[in-house]
Amino acid sequence: MTDDLRGSLIGARIARPDAEAKLTGSCRFLSDMRFGDLLHARQVPSPAPHARLLGLDCRAAREAPGVRALITAAEVPGENRVGVIYDDQPLFAEEKVRYVGEAMAVVAAESEEEATAAAALVEARLEALPALLSLDDVEANPEHPIHSGGPIAVHHRVSKGNVARGFAEAAQVVDATFRTGSQEHYYLEPLGCVALPGDRGGVTLLASCQCPFYIQKAVARTAGLPLGEVRVVQTPTGGAFGGKEDVPSEICARAALLALATGRPVRLLLERREDIAYSSKRHPYTIRGRLAARADGRFTAIEIHQDAEAGAYATLSPPVLYRSAMQAAGPYEIPHVKVEARAWYTNQAPSGAFRGFGSPQATFAHERLVDLMASELGTDPVELRRINLLREGGTTGTGHRLDASVGALETLERCAAAVPAEEATAKSSPALREDPGRWLLGTGYGSMIYGNCLGKAGWHMDGAGATLQLHRDGSLSCAVGLTEIGQGAEVVVTQFAADALGALPEQVTLLPVDTAFVPDSGPTVASRNVVMSGNAILDAAKQLRSRLSPLAAELLGCAEGEAPLFEAGRVHSGERELSLAELAEEAFQRNVNLAAEGWWHAPPLDFDLRKGRGEAYFAYSFATQAARVAVDRLTGQVKVLGVWAAHDVGRAVNPAGIEGQVEGGVAQGVGWAIGERVACEGGRILSDNLSTYALPTALEVPEVETIIVESPHPDGPHGAKSLGEPCIIPTAAAVANAIGQAIGSPVDSIPVDPEEILLRLEEVGLG
Amino acid sequence: MTDDLRGSLIGARIARPDAEAKLTGSCRFLSDMRFGDLLHARQVPSPAPHARLLGLDCRAAREAPGVRALITAAEVPGENRVGVIYDDQPLFAEEKVRYVGEAMAVVAAESEEEATAAAALVEARLEALPALLSLDDVEANPEHPIHSGGPIAVHHRVSKGNVARGFAEAAQVVDATFRTGSQEHYYLEPLGCVALPGDRGGVTLLASCQCPFYIQKAVARTAGLPLGEVRVVQTPTGGAFGGKEDVPSEICARAALLALATGRPVRLLLERREDIAYSSKRHPYTIRGRLAARADGRFTAIEIHQDAEAGAYATLSPPVLYRSAMQAAGPYEIPHVKVEARAWYTNQAPSGAFRGFGSPQATFAHERLVDLMASELGTDPVELRRINLLREGGTTGTGHRLDASVGALETLERCAAAVPAEEATAKSSPALREDPGRWLLGTGYGSMIYGNCLGKAGWHMDGAGATLQLHRDGSLSCAVGLTEIGQGAEVVVTQFAADALGALPEQVTLLPVDTAFVPDSGPTVASRNVVMSGNAILDAAKQLRSRLSPLAAELLGCAEGEAPLFEAGRVHSGERELSLAELAEEAFQRNVNLAAEGWWHAPPLDFDLRKGRGEAYFAYSFATQAARVAVDRLTGQVKVLGVWAAHDVGRAVNPAGIEGQVEGGVAQGVGWAIGERVACEGGRILSDNLSTYALPTALEVPEVETIIVESPHPDGPHGAKSLGEPCIIPTAAAVANAIGQAIGSPVDSIPVDPEEILLRLEEVGLG
Repeated sequence: MTDDLRGSLIGARIARPDAEAKLTGSCRFLSDMRFGDLLHARQVPSPAPHARLLGLDCRAAREAPGVRALITAAEVPGENRVGVIYDDQPLFAEEKVRYVGEAMAVVAAESEEEATAAAALVEARLEALPALLSLDDVEANPEHPIHSGGPIAVHHRVSKGNVARGFAEAAQVVDATFRTGSQEHYYLEPLGCVALPGDRGGVTLLASCQCPFYIQKAVARTAGLPLGEVRVVQTPTGGAFGGKEDVPSEICARAALLALATGRPVRLLLERREDIAYSSKRHPYTIRGRLAARADGRFTAIEIHQDAEAGAYATLSPPVLYRSAMQAAGPYEIPHVKVEARAWYTNQAPSGAFRGFGSPQATFAHERLVDLMASELGTDPVELRRINLLREGGTTGTGHRLDASVGALETLERCAAAVPAEEATAKSSPALREDPGRWLLGTGYGSMIYGNCLGKAGWHMDGAGATLQLHRDGSLSCAVGLTEIGQGAEVVVTQFAADALGALPEQVTLLPVDTAFVPDSGPTVASRNVVMSGNAILDAAKQLRSRLSPLAAELLGCAEGEAPLFEAGRVHSGERELSLAELAEEAFQRNVNLAAEGWWHAPPLDFDLRKGRGEAYFAYSFATQAARVAVDRLTGQVKVLGVWAAHDVGRAVNPAGIEGQVEGGVAQGVGWAIGERVACEGGRILSDNLSTYALPTALEVPEVETIIVESPHPDGPHGAKSLGEPCIIPTAAAVANAIGQAIGSPVDSIPVDPEEILLRLEEVGLG
Repeated sequence: MTDDLRGSLIGARIARPDAEAKLTGSCRFLSDMRFGDLLHARQVPSPAPHARLLGLDCRAAREAPGVRALITAAEVPGENRVGVIYDDQPLFAEEKVRYVGEAMAVVAAESEEEATAAAALVEARLEALPALLSLDDVEANPEHPIHSGGPIAVHHRVSKGNVARGFAEAAQVVDATFRTGSQEHYYLEPLGCVALPGDRGGVTLLASCQCPFYIQKAVARTAGLPLGEVRVVQTPTGGAFGGKEDVPSEICARAALLALATGRPVRLLLERREDIAYSSKRHPYTIRGRLAARADGRFTAIEIHQDAEAGAYATLSPPVLYRSAMQAAGPYEIPHVKVEARAWYTNQAPSGAFRGFGSPQATFAHERLVDLMASELGTDPVELRRINLLREGGTTGTGHRLDASVGALETLERCAAAVPAEEATAKSSPALREDPGRWLLGTGYGSMIYGNCLGKAGWHMDGAGATLQLHRDGSLSCAVGLTEIGQGAEVVVTQFAADALGALPEQVTLLPVDTAFVPDSGPTVASRNVVMSGNAILDAAKQLRSRLSPLAAELLGCAEGEAPLFEAGRVHSGERELSLAELAEEAFQRNVNLAAEGWWHAPPLDFDLRKGRGEAYFAYSFATQAARVAVDRLTGQVKVLGVWAAHDVGRAVNPAGIEGQVEGGVAQGVGWAIGERVACEGGRILSDNLSTYALPTALEVPEVETIIVESPHPDGPHGAKSLGEPCIIPTAAAVANAIGQAIGSPVDSIPVDPEEILLRLEEVGLG
């Protein structure tokens, strides 16, 4: 894809175009926007985790002051379905409610207060059913399935070689069961949207979201409209982390129905409490794993059984389990692999998309197994990884032979080289210097493999578009189909667009993501943005350059075959140059089409979905993170002192952006490992605010050193690969391994809390 | 351009997609839209037609209640210039004011009332200059030019052959001087816009307008922003007729500066009175003409001198005069032609774009000359036209040889054949039956030639874009760069898009015209919409079909070389068929890019601008209209009883739309000929409402019979040519010729009013 690009902006530390507005507060999020004639909506949540819904009495609510519309399952003009992949989820509960918070109705009124008051007047006649709130409950209640199809929402498998032979050949086998907890996204901005009815029957949604095309589809389906009549525009979005992948489709569909029913703009904004009760979470996993190695440390086989809680609806369990299965064997060369991955329905809010998509869970298990093996073999954990990490020419756990762009080993070496001696750490910490005996230091590693983009399971929607419009003054408008959700996508898109046409970054204006600008570009998930939008922009830019180059050559008096260069706001050849503005104006005068529509799709994949073997993804990112922790023997509390994070990003488009991504991912991984716990009682979430849900604060977030490894991939734009999700993936594993090393007792379950640590310390005689 | 298109929707009488909302009132125009946090703007108009502006005292206005910003020339961040073609016009008056109503400042306040009150507090120190309110005044005051460059705003010429020789060869020469009046557009919706400031410094304009790209340029220039930072979205526009070509740029630039200054949305809506005082009008022309013919009626030469009043600024005088000059010789084969066309500055509101762009004026003159010649030669006016009208292989007045698509003669023959005998008309009219002696009947003809699109003078911006997006469900979104301003463009665009992809019209959604969707597509003027957008859509559709056809052929099991047909919502080959939805879904699954960006530009033109010779336009529309009038001998009033309008449209895309266009154009032409008069006193317009400006009502609009002539042009989409402006062009000439015939006295000046008719009747002894 490199063509004749100079790439002079690729690798530059350019500030995010959205940074200033977000830092100064001038950025208008949905709740800051003002609309005329606005109605306010409120959802009516189920109070029960599992019950038959015998009837809804909405009479009082419909007649309450200020109420303009109330919609239940009975009033849905299209299909009452919003399941993003499976068809198991209604827009409004019909015969059953399946979790506390599930929407049974939605009401629109003249004010927030009136909408809230009216929603409270809806009376549901419910007949309680046994609530299955965990995998144990599901196992204990086979006669009460949550869905008629049975308890399993998803089942994926991987098989490579002959795992029995692999275990037979081994000198050492380790096995263990691992548990990872749920996690709340806790994005800055709760879910919300505004639906604007069109004069002619269609509807436009303004939404805080990741996936405008999902919303378009859900609204069209539930409203009974053609896709062309539904337009979705992303508003500046205050964080998402997967939590705004599919859930905004539900919110938007409800607001759209109210807008269509009333002919007025309708805003549906969730309060934080509602948002947490209602919306998706990270899948809790129970993973049983066995790893086998020869005496020299070479792995011979791995067998992994992943059981995940899907919650009340499948939502994104299929791709989450696909990913956790495909990556279950880790970034290692292992000849024999067997993976079984299942998601089970429970009566919790649906587990859904969350940064990493099952990868942090899978990585937790394989990285704990590696450390366990190192301990059994008496080998250094770094050395054991060094022996087994994938090289070019190796094959992944699914049997995908990798001929290029395998930076796994380099991430390990550069990470290990960066980690200072424990003595240095001890000296640099005031707390540790003051009372050294109180603290137990430990260092742990985690390595990971990450399949880029959607892989075989989502290949059919793994394309993306971009449009470029060069203006007469040399400024450039760019539209892409993937969203900025905090990850820094805009700056990267700006760099690709500017670089590809030789513009300056400040000449580029990014248009809002709008389903009308580009064809369905799939979801903004799976760290797709850089690869997909980048390639689509390069495609559009190539078309524009093919029209502009001959003109530039003519204007510059280039000799036959001499191609002008587009670079940094000018177009030049030898000593002659034009500004991009001059070239654009001349092209306009000559009636050259100055817009182009680019498209890129993931390469074909040779993968057998039934057997779980082959090319699961077209490219893989690699990373190794090391964590150093200090465990407080008095309180059991863990301080993560530092994390050294080496990431193979293919090609670093913006190192500053990479550092930001890594630091955020590590913070979120640390929270998941040692701080965040979704507390429930009878299906009701208790930890629904920041006083009960302990996000890491500036005090808990460690120092992070980002180490960039570049192992360019031939299909990445300028060689770039995915980064957004990898940042969090190995963190918890590294932290758990570090704690285990510090306290001399394995940590196989997260979140780890101080009580647990204190018990362990007593067990091992360090308490 | 016909490719493998079926064209089954081309020629269909399909209802306008915008009709229902406009008829029922559900369509939201700018003043119906509700915005939060809105500021209201008001312009401060010049009270004087011509004065030095010594100073503006804005202190009281700035401190008035509710005022948030006030902007004068001194506060313009970019250039204080808005001239669309020449640089003679400031956004806010600087050293001088040049017409009553010219904006000196603009103020934004919390309410309309506060804005109006504050605007009235601005005090201008003015030193009066002689006001030049007519061509006579200009001639009489050479020492007081309105602009430093002198009195002439524009000068165009045409020369073909040797006009002296042409006159020498003639057996008969006629000459006369013609005067045509000004005209107010009187669109339903006055000028207005809302400017929305972006969080990051850019601005979006929602505007009732014809030319979003002009606005984009004007706002960028005056605000000092790159074009990419200015986005313009057309709102449903209640009429325009040329009056919203350039003037909205001024309105929008002022609102944009206020929005950028305050960080709040700003609405600037003109009241009707303000709109009429401030905005552009049709150019009044004085035309001296000479026409020569042999004894057999063949024309040998024509010489035309056009003098037009430009008003205070050149605005669109250059293209208006270009067009009136190029078409001055009419649709006739004349070997020797000389045309001089000049526009002169006066202290009136600028003359600007108005349906026909100088053509109705030019046509008035050449059609009056033809009737004068017929009278002198004693030939029937229809016969004289028959002898001289252009045929294929003929050359236009500028010497452009036409090898195809010359329907001139057919329009004459079919028009003449449609006109009933005068006796039949007399019998069918109750008024005439009642008192036959009171009425004088007359019949007149007018033929015209109309150069399609912008021609050589505007060739550099005679391109247009279109985007098509096929959705997975077979619905289709379409964006074009040219606007719906009442002419019925949307239905035609829908037909082209649906037909080209084999969709049903109801599967097509038109997106609002938005500068972000398509590249600069030039202005919506010159009846460009059908030709330009049509061709651009065909280009986009061709790209999509090239991606879809092979897939359809595969799915339908077509034999090698057998191409599936796209038609009426299905794709078929023999008896096998797929719905377009099925094909679209399969294409999506296979990652086919379902969007395309189309572009079309006018063909190159061989034209010498200095000499005024060659290919002035790439295609020409032709028309002949006949008018039958009854003149009331008692009151002098004219009833236009019927108009027979035969138009060569190349290919009729939507006959119902053509009828609507023709009826509207004829009504407007009748108003210009006999009813509408812009009354002024000292530069102040007195006729600023419907009680003083007499638009034709249902009582004055004649019965119109539309006769469609199809003479396809190879460069038109499916052969289509321009129609919008031609509808009005020959009407006034036909009406004047009819009146002249009725009263036996030539009508060389319009508007004709009853007093004038009574005087003439007395002169000829019929009073």
